[in-house]
Amino acid sequence: MSKSSKSRAWIGFDLGGTKMMAVVYNDRFKQLGMRRRKTKAYEGVRAGIDRIVDTVNQALEEAQVSRGEVAGMGIGCPGPLDIEKGILIDTPNMGWRNLPLKKLLEKIFGFPVLIANDVDAGVYGEYCFGAARKARCAIGVFPGTGIGGGCVYEGRLIRGEKNSCFEIGHMRVMPDGMLCGCGRHGCLETLTSRLAISAAIIAAAYRGEAPNLLKEVGLDLSNIRSNSIASAISAGDRAVEKIVRDAASWLGVGIGTVVNLMNPDVVVLGGGLVEAMPVLFKTAVEESARKTAMPSFEKSFKVAIAGLGDSATAMGAAALARDAFSDTKAGEKKK
Amino acid sequence: MSKSSKSRAWIGFDLGGTKMMAVVYNDRFKQLGMRRRKTKAYEGVRAGIDRIVDTVNQALEEAQVSRGEVAGMGIGCPGPLDIEKGILIDTPNMGWRNLPLKKLLEKIFGFPVLIANDVDAGVYGEYCFGAARKARCAIGVFPGTGIGGGCVYEGRLIRGEKNSCFEIGHMRVMPDGMLCGCGRHGCLETLTSRLAISAAIIAAAYRGEAPNLLKEVGLDLSNIRSNSIASAISAGDRAVEKIVRDAASWLGVGIGTVVNLMNPDVVVLGGGLVEAMPVLFKTAVEESARKTAMPSFEKSFKVAIAGLGDSATAMGAAALARDAFSDTKAGEKKK
Repeated sequence: MSKSSKSRAWIGFDLGGTKMMAVVYNDRFKQLGMRRRKTKAYEGVRAGIDRIVDTVNQALEEAQVSRGEVAGMGIGCPGPLDIEKGILIDTPNMGWRNLPLKKLLEKIFGFPVLIANDVDAGVYGEYCFGAARKARCAIGVFPGTGIGGGCVYEGRLIRGEKNSCFEIGHMRVMPDGMLCGCGRHGCLETLTSRLAISAAIIAAAYRGEAPNLLKEVGLDLSNIRSNSIASAISAGDRAVEKIVRDAASWLGVGIGTVVNLMNPDVVVLGGGLVEAMPVLFKTAVEESARKTAMPSFEKSFKVAIAGLGDSATAMGAAALARDAFSDTKAGEKKK
Repeated sequence: MSKSSKSRAWIGFDLGGTKMMAVVYNDRFKQLGMRRRKTKAYEGVRAGIDRIVDTVNQALEEAQVSRGEVAGMGIGCPGPLDIEKGILIDTPNMGWRNLPLKKLLEKIFGFPVLIANDVDAGVYGEYCFGAARKARCAIGVFPGTGIGGGCVYEGRLIRGEKNSCFEIGHMRVMPDGMLCGCGRHGCLETLTSRLAISAAIIAAAYRGEAPNLLKEVGLDLSNIRSNSIASAISAGDRAVEKIVRDAASWLGVGIGTVVNLMNPDVVVLGGGLVEAMPVLFKTAVEESARKTAMPSFEKSFKVAIAGLGDSATAMGAAALARDAFSDTKAGEKKK
């Protein structure tokens, strides 16, 4: 690695409820170093900040990049956020509140820091470097505990006034449908999130319709992983396959409506569930999205599996930092 | 009117299946002249072009503006369109196909012409001059024969690759719902377009539940006007009121989902039906949209009635022309 390619490094950081990850990139976004650890949010905010700083430092060390060579850092965080001020307003599952993360980290590191919604950062990562490269309009859909959604339209993320939006999981697709975590009824999320799928699978296992899954994980919802669902299907649990396929079809219904609104050229599916069963998801989502979209939009879009895996958020956050901070740095280069 | 304020006039044109309208504006978008006529599309394309040209000329005459003073013209047209080439690909209810309107009119008039989707132009008009002024993100919803929808995000229309999009009428809100004109089932339009409302009202009249409406317009669907619906409600047809209120609530369900996706600051309702019953529509749409949107978005948006009436499309088309052509003109002013 030549020195010049390191002279403007970018850091991407993925701050999750379970794990955190720091990645150091050179100016052409080649990965130079990476460090991943558990978040352990329950240890409190101060310990959390220390862990973030340590993780960044260790990634820098692996990359052999000094702080002075870093042009900026982007952090993908769970919402809600005050992006302008760089404050984590509330972090579900973490308990950190009104945390001025941007200011704290800028003081510690001395380079500029921005925060972004983690899903937005992931979609932007796929747009810049992954399955949605060069798309005029890209939609990202990541079914997890909820359903993450984001949109890059003509090169820019669609964002809300104060935070992210594109809450595709909270489209109402079922009038008088089930209660959703948001407090409304019939949201897409109630039919097709990983949580909804896992709950339906547990019920099937209880009824004796998913013997392989039952043998492997039992009836505890919290034990179900994307991979255990995939294994049960491979082992022949037809009920599990049908549950996943139906859920993916519902996801396609929601996506079809989004196609009618935004006319994207590509819809990127990602997250652990999709990655564990990419063919099943792609096929079922695509079929149902094409049938839901208006005939004139039916063939106007591609469905693709995310290309960056779990580094999408870090990479997208780093790209957002580059967009925000590279003018200053370009000026400094002239010296 | 001083000469200088006329020296850069803009023309907005609304080309509808039933009527056409030309409006001449000065550089500050004060209306200088207007002319409206029936489209009579059945007389054919050549006669149609002649009528367009005559209408523009008469509006210019009323405005006392010469062709040489016109900086550009924007035309709001029914879709689908090839906006880049300025071609009307197909005009439902008019029968004009593959018509290179931009080129034809530029040759005749000598000033630059652009075409835009009529609903997009209307939403842009409301954004520039009407009920959505200064909105960061504005959604326009115009229930008519179908449901027109559009979105201005950070100053620019959300558009599809080749044409308009934001087809809010074709969100699927009712699984296995009624057949829609687009060929799919359960689209919002099947529950809440003027056509859907009129059909339900005719059925109620047939059952004897809408005596005032029956007396006024009979059972012929094509005789129902927005104003006859409003009169029947005023005269005490409770069933008609309930039908309209339910439809408006469904419209709110669709809008609530759009709020979750785009986090608009304002949702503008317009069109003849809304203008005939603004209070009923605003109240019912707003209540249901707030109940459908996620709690965190519940109070994030305003619902407003369109402010420009039926000149929104002409005015927005003229504004789009200004955006597209004013650089050239700014250069010419220097002479």
